[in-house]
Amino acid sequence: MDAEQLREHAHKMVDFIADYYKSIENFPVLSQVEPGYLRGMLPDSAPDHPESLEDIFNDIQAKILPGVTHWQSPNYFAYYPSNSSIAGFLGEMLSAGLNIVGFSWITSPAATELEMIVLDWLAKLLNLPDYFLLGGQGGGVIQGTASEAVLVVLLAARERTLTRVGKNALGKLVVYASDQTHSSLQKACQVGGIQPENCRFLKADSSTNYGLSPEVLCEAITHDIAIGLIPFFLCATVGTTSSTAVDPLLSLGKIAKSNGMWFHVDAAYAGSACICPEYRHYIDGVEEADSFNMNAHKWFLTNFDCSALWVKDRNALVQSLSTNPEYLKNKASQARLVVDYKDWQIPLGRRFRSLKLWMVLRLYGIENLQCYIRNHIKLAKLFEGLVAQDPRFEVVTPRIFSLVCFRLLPSQNKDDHGNKLNHDLLDAVNSTGKVFISHTVLSGKYVLRFAVGAPLTEERHIISAWKVLQDEASALL
Amino acid sequence: MDAEQLREHAHKMVDFIADYYKSIENFPVLSQVEPGYLRGMLPDSAPDHPESLEDIFNDIQAKILPGVTHWQSPNYFAYYPSNSSIAGFLGEMLSAGLNIVGFSWITSPAATELEMIVLDWLAKLLNLPDYFLLGGQGGGVIQGTASEAVLVVLLAARERTLTRVGKNALGKLVVYASDQTHSSLQKACQVGGIQPENCRFLKADSSTNYGLSPEVLCEAITHDIAIGLIPFFLCATVGTTSSTAVDPLLSLGKIAKSNGMWFHVDAAYAGSACICPEYRHYIDGVEEADSFNMNAHKWFLTNFDCSALWVKDRNALVQSLSTNPEYLKNKASQARLVVDYKDWQIPLGRRFRSLKLWMVLRLYGIENLQCYIRNHIKLAKLFEGLVAQDPRFEVVTPRIFSLVCFRLLPSQNKDDHGNKLNHDLLDAVNSTGKVFISHTVLSGKYVLRFAVGAPLTEERHIISAWKVLQDEASALL
Repeated sequence: MDAEQLREHAHKMVDFIADYYKSIENFPVLSQVEPGYLRGMLPDSAPDHPESLEDIFNDIQAKILPGVTHWQSPNYFAYYPSNSSIAGFLGEMLSAGLNIVGFSWITSPAATELEMIVLDWLAKLLNLPDYFLLGGQGGGVIQGTASEAVLVVLLAARERTLTRVGKNALGKLVVYASDQTHSSLQKACQVGGIQPENCRFLKADSSTNYGLSPEVLCEAITHDIAIGLIPFFLCATVGTTSSTAVDPLLSLGKIAKSNGMWFHVDAAYAGSACICPEYRHYIDGVEEADSFNMNAHKWFLTNFDCSALWVKDRNALVQSLSTNPEYLKNKASQARLVVDYKDWQIPLGRRFRSLKLWMVLRLYGIENLQCYIRNHIKLAKLFEGLVAQDPRFEVVTPRIFSLVCFRLLPSQNKDDHGNKLNHDLLDAVNSTGKVFISHTVLSGKYVLRFAVGAPLTEERHIISAWKVLQDEASALL
Repeated sequence: MDAEQLREHAHKMVDFIADYYKSIENFPVLSQVEPGYLRGMLPDSAPDHPESLEDIFNDIQAKILPGVTHWQSPNYFAYYPSNSSIAGFLGEMLSAGLNIVGFSWITSPAATELEMIVLDWLAKLLNLPDYFLLGGQGGGVIQGTASEAVLVVLLAARERTLTRVGKNALGKLVVYASDQTHSSLQKACQVGGIQPENCRFLKADSSTNYGLSPEVLCEAITHDIAIGLIPFFLCATVGTTSSTAVDPLLSLGKIAKSNGMWFHVDAAYAGSACICPEYRHYIDGVEEADSFNMNAHKWFLTNFDCSALWVKDRNALVQSLSTNPEYLKNKASQARLVVDYKDWQIPLGRRFRSLKLWMVLRLYGIENLQCYIRNHIKLAKLFEGLVAQDPRFEVVTPRIFSLVCFRLLPSQNKDDHGNKLNHDLLDAVNSTGKVFISHTVLSGKYVLRFAVGAPLTEERHIISAWKVLQDEASALL
């Protein structure tokens, strides 16, 4: 590690990355390689002797980039966005440069304290209740992903409940959510040993715009209690993955509370929109929640990974996740003067991720961040309008944020409701390399998802994407 | 995200980081700030309007760096190292620049395939059995940390066992390891719902150099089976955190196998040394293992995080961790033509971490990496020799790799065996800011740990560190 060689090499990498962004529209958005493409292109083992940086750059260009699906392309509309920004990138660089491992406060006080402060900033920006701030009993923490966020709060809830009802009751604990909830909840249940038959993924359909009905929830809880089970965890979503459905937090939260359940709100994607006053109402009812999660790495210009989680009672997390081995003991921790984030998460080690979030908030400022969100929503509206104007297509669910769910109408009254047609359209469109979109299934219908949110996307990209869709549809019909 | 502005700003960040490395010896190694130091220095909320990069750099210098504990300092000897290198840093930059989220093969085939290839390279370098390679039934995967590695294999083992004995037997499952095992195993047990009273952290002492005794293990297993419990998981360590103790893999593995248990080998720290033929014998017996873990982010020049895990049977992982929501379905996955690493880990999303490991292997080459390890071990030997020459000190356990466990001998026959004295010495030494070391307790003795492994550490740093220790000891005695 020679500082001058680092400087020289890293400047070259900066240019490589800047050039990548300049030419990003030239790549097929979805990688078009075949499974196993890379194995034949690389040697079978590591080299005995050093290779040159130039050789590596050549290989990146010739062998790696063709296998990259370009999430930062302005023509990327699949899944949900994974934002990169200058500020986020600078934060990642600095974090990698300092390369600290911030498991305990003492291992870099700045890492813990900046995270506490920046998550308080973000909580205020979202107008979260005060008890999610570190001044009270709660607090914020950066998890890697929403999957880890829901897992740690599920574990905290499990511990809290088993402490109350006895540790042998694990097989009786029941989890509730709509069937639109992200698969990470199912995975958290698997990990936490919740019996699959005690996971109630309650049906939500178009009658509630795919939001979870409080009546359906009440009914399920009543039934479970009657047969001796123990409801302990409810997960509501603001902005589901399939269709950005919004669960009614206030009613759901009251039901959870009256049944002594932990209430988690997953706003991984749509949380970002709630920094705009006009969208904040979608998380009304968050004051009933025990925990709230939003992914700054989705639609908030913070490079992956950075998933912000707030909890009302930080002790619940610590009680379920802490260990205290001798070799990590230190004065500040023993005196309980500090937060040790190792006890708020699954891993021990953790990166200095607050740097990038701090830089995003400071380099852009609140007003620009709000404009950023509004612009994407405006572009999604534009796309929705284009779809609506073409009688061959339909918008399947009302657009709420920046995702449009739509499909090509079946030309005849086909048995599969046009599912194969839309599947084929998806394939055809993604095979052009010009855009990348993804799909879901809603009430048995195969639906195309067009998620706006890449930082480079402009109106012209929406227009061209729609043209590609129309052209491929014409070819298919 | 303007490419030219990215270029301009990122070049500045490169210079900032290169300058940081040039001046790294000027900072106190262990941050000397007080708890809460940062809150008063930063505003209460995010700014409405953008701030300049210059202001941010000034704040990093004035407010963040004083709160950083400098893991990259050549005078850092605490815990275990967390290596940063030019290659590792470049890999982090490129990963952050591309900013893909590689949960499934299709989301960037290069990310999955490069990871498969590079972990095969590393497996060959460690001379791991062929069945850990992706050609067979097993394979390698990059986890964030060793904590996640041990958790996912514990979950795989839990699933495999419960499938055999019935899902209601969770309360009967027993885990075995020595009491020197890293706390991440205890945490994995907590997460996985293993009853605390079924976690056997078997006593290991100086009679076996803190390695787990096969006899002690056999006795425990026999007893547990006799009372109707189900042994299912054994974790052995090569290079424990306290003292780099090495468990006897071959005998332990055979016991595990004959009892139908999953055998995991944690070589998080010492695995790196095993790329040198003369240290490879420490993992002899790994051919009995179901899984093997080493942290490339510790002592292998790969910036945090990068924890390499190999499993013998990848289906065991996939069966316990997979989910298959509609919105992630795609042709390649459905046809089972590809690896989707989302099913080998806790989170859904994952960064392109193989880039940095690939760059480390290529930019340095095997021979240099072996020299790198040998040099640190030589420096640790040097330190060990210095300690041995001073009659006021003792080396507590035989040095095996690059960690020296030592202590100041109590001047009189104190009741606490010199524990307070060594605690005070640790405090005094770390308060100088000149070095950072940590501690452990072995058989009731408070022991100082001097772990060599920072990339910048040279002989002169060892000599000065020893001088600081001697001076502070003189002041105390």
